Amino acid sequence: MSRLRIEAGSAPALIDAFRGRLGLVDGFDGFLDLEVWQSDRDAGEIIMVSRWRDRECFKAYMRSDAHRRSHDRIDPELDRSIDLERLEHLHTYEVVAD
Amino acid sequence: MSRLRIEAGSAPALIDAFRGRLGLVDGFDGFLDLEVWQSDRDAGEIIMVSRWRDRECFKAYMRSDAHRRSHDRIDPELDRSIDLERLEHLHTYEVVAD
Repeated sequence: MSRLRIEAGSAPALIDAFRGRLGLVDGFDGFLDLEVWQSDRDAGEIIMVSRWRDRECFKAYMRSDAHRRSHDRIDPELDRSIDLERLEHLHTYEVVAD
Repeated sequence: MSRLRIEAGSAPALIDAFRGRLGLVDGFDGFLDLEVWQSDRDAGEIIMVSRWRDRECFKAYMRSDAHRRSHDRIDPELDRSIDLERLEHLHTYEVVAD
């Protein structure tokens, strides 16, 4: 889970970028799904959740060329506006009940 | 999404409580799923995520007798240990991309 903070006016561009993603992650071993959540009280608060079969698959993806290429194509201006206001970095969780 | 903080030693009891839940929510109109996440770096950080067809369904559940009954059966000691250390209350998000 990554929590991003971005100016509310830039949120649609960020959401569009996720919707138009290359999809390089989708075929990666162990990938389950990816969702982007937007706070209903604060349009500039965006959470990205990706789910994986296990931690090893996730770590393999984070080290992969596919992950690097996904990030390389983010519009530099958008990327800067996210980086500047980032509140929290990546957090990882185990699903312990459902 | 609710983020709970609990003493690490009490986390298994909290997780068990979720696993043994009455399931009153499962049949509620608009309910999709419920997951409990535990941080891999901090066993006392627990996130509960429930997903709903739309906000109205969620609000109807939160006002319902089923929701009250689910909470009433939480062990009082466990409930107190959560309340005392709660960091954040409920946050709601729209799924804007997947």
